Amino acid sequence: MTSPKVVALGGGHGLFASLSALRRVTDRLTAVVTVADDGGSSGRLRRELGVLPPGDLRMALAALCRDDDWGRTWSEVVQHRFRSEGELHGHAMGNLLMVALWELLDDPVAGLDWMGRLLGAQGRVLPMASVPLDIVAEVRGADPERPQEITHVQGQVACAKTPGQVLSVSLVPPDPPASPDALRAIEEADWVVFGPGSWFTSVLPHLKVPELASALLRTPARRIVALNLEPQPGETDDFSPQRHLEVLRAHAPDLRVDIVLADRNVVEERDVVEKAARTLGGTLVLADVAAGDGSPRHDPARLAQAFAQIFVSGHCPRQDSARLP
Amino acid sequence: MTSPKVVALGGGHGLFASLSALRRVTDRLTAVVTVADDGGSSGRLRRELGVLPPGDLRMALAALCRDDDWGRTWSEVVQHRFRSEGELHGHAMGNLLMVALWELLDDPVAGLDWMGRLLGAQGRVLPMASVPLDIVAEVRGADPERPQEITHVQGQVACAKTPGQVLSVSLVPPDPPASPDALRAIEEADWVVFGPGSWFTSVLPHLKVPELASALLRTPARRIVALNLEPQPGETDDFSPQRHLEVLRAHAPDLRVDIVLADRNVVEERDVVEKAARTLGGTLVLADVAAGDGSPRHDPARLAQAFAQIFVSGHCPRQDSARLP
Repeated sequence: MTSPKVVALGGGHGLFASLSALRRVTDRLTAVVTVADDGGSSGRLRRELGVLPPGDLRMALAALCRDDDWGRTWSEVVQHRFRSEGELHGHAMGNLLMVALWELLDDPVAGLDWMGRLLGAQGRVLPMASVPLDIVAEVRGADPERPQEITHVQGQVACAKTPGQVLSVSLVPPDPPASPDALRAIEEADWVVFGPGSWFTSVLPHLKVPELASALLRTPARRIVALNLEPQPGETDDFSPQRHLEVLRAHAPDLRVDIVLADRNVVEERDVVEKAARTLGGTLVLADVAAGDGSPRHDPARLAQAFAQIFVSGHCPRQDSARLP
Repeated sequence: MTSPKVVALGGGHGLFASLSALRRVTDRLTAVVTVADDGGSSGRLRRELGVLPPGDLRMALAALCRDDDWGRTWSEVVQHRFRSEGELHGHAMGNLLMVALWELLDDPVAGLDWMGRLLGAQGRVLPMASVPLDIVAEVRGADPERPQEITHVQGQVACAKTPGQVLSVSLVPPDPPASPDALRAIEEADWVVFGPGSWFTSVLPHLKVPELASALLRTPARRIVALNLEPQPGETDDFSPQRHLEVLRAHAPDLRVDIVLADRNVVEERDVVEKAARTLGGTLVLADVAAGDGSPRHDPARLAQAFAQIFVSGHCPRQDSARLP
């Protein structure tokens, strides 16, 4: 059977989790990755060399490495971080390699494709825009002494760390050029997967790139939202599953969702989450997707099984909620 | 026909030239490379991370890349140098990748082999010692105000740049552990090739690693010395071809050489060079190996042809001198 064409949207550890699962389920996988990081190794490279922040793209490529000697070694190499008292301290090897490819080939997508070839990546990784972005968050109480004041915080690091409550995000520049290959992948997809991941800084930014948002609304693909296993300190403190869905809807009011996938043990008020899913046009699917050790990580094999069952069963919009065995 | 087992000794641009030629002639090629660089990107990495200086090893690997899309791209990537106003300025990409592999695998040779696999290298690259080395040169007139004084200059950069006359080189530490794989390659070789390259800092240091020198004396392989196309400013100012051979002999009095290969247009006093070759036990072979544009570079195809003819004709110690067509 031909495997479905799947596009996964996100960044960071959340996208690493969804890609680690999805690459087991389909061989037609594309990741569309946030390029708004301004911290750590990525932030330094962006400032020093004027390139896209490579970190989220590098991590996505590492997630697509095969489980063999070649894949494991190169995945470790690109994820390797230098530790020293000197100038290389903190740089991830794969970030440097990514940037060298970009400087040589003068084309972010060509560089990513060559990196994918090196790694034997089981899928393609594309940037969500062709230029570096900055996230701007609308925050209530960024200054703890004025808890009700609404201000703007700029930069992914600042947004993720704000002590205030993030209300919404937007991008600078506000209308960046999307990657044409990413638009085509979304238009041709059978399934589009949002999340898991840092909600405001990795999952929602895609909806604020106008061309990308338009493709995500237009695509005939079915849409899955994979919820997080726990709220993220700072940017989504105290966020319930339904609150994640409400925020998604606020950022893209016209977006319909077919499936909301959540871990069985994370959803406490099932009927409330079901209702929130229905508001988006979708069905709640509960499954055991968390790691067995109780840590708030997705288990790649379990998450893969959940995706596989969703892909096989297809879209069931009239079914109230579904439980995977 | 099985191709001969060839070991090429050297470093830097000279070794790049011999490897670029030799990989066209044999598929059983091993480079044994100097690890004494203390300048530029290599010097910084060595000081910051306590690793072998990777530059000469990286350049040797780049020389072994195939002439196809994969080989050309990865060769350019590993040779790529960052240019910026920041901390990465001047680092060669391949040096960083090499170091990451070493840190991960904790074994210089395993790291080099993985890098070779990535590049699809047509041969193996090994370090001449398992620890970083420093070259110490005995120099006459290092201080231009005391032209007759003999002093010691430490470090590859200092040796290469001294305004004085280099008389000999030695190593710190004086008895470094050689790479066991390099010793085995030399013992099993059909041909060992010295040079071309910076005579004191890339070609002679191998003879000052006691274990390596002993293997080079003991091996049943036939030995070729490939002479430079011009004296190198600084370390071999005004050095004639015969002076190169005399210095080689002074550094390894017991070493026998079978073939001295020189460009036809470089050798002015043919009988003097023939005599110097005979003193080492060898035959002078003249061929057109320089680039056709008159620049002092070896032409890889011409040098390959010269090596091929030497390998086919074998060792002709009783023939006074030979001219390749």
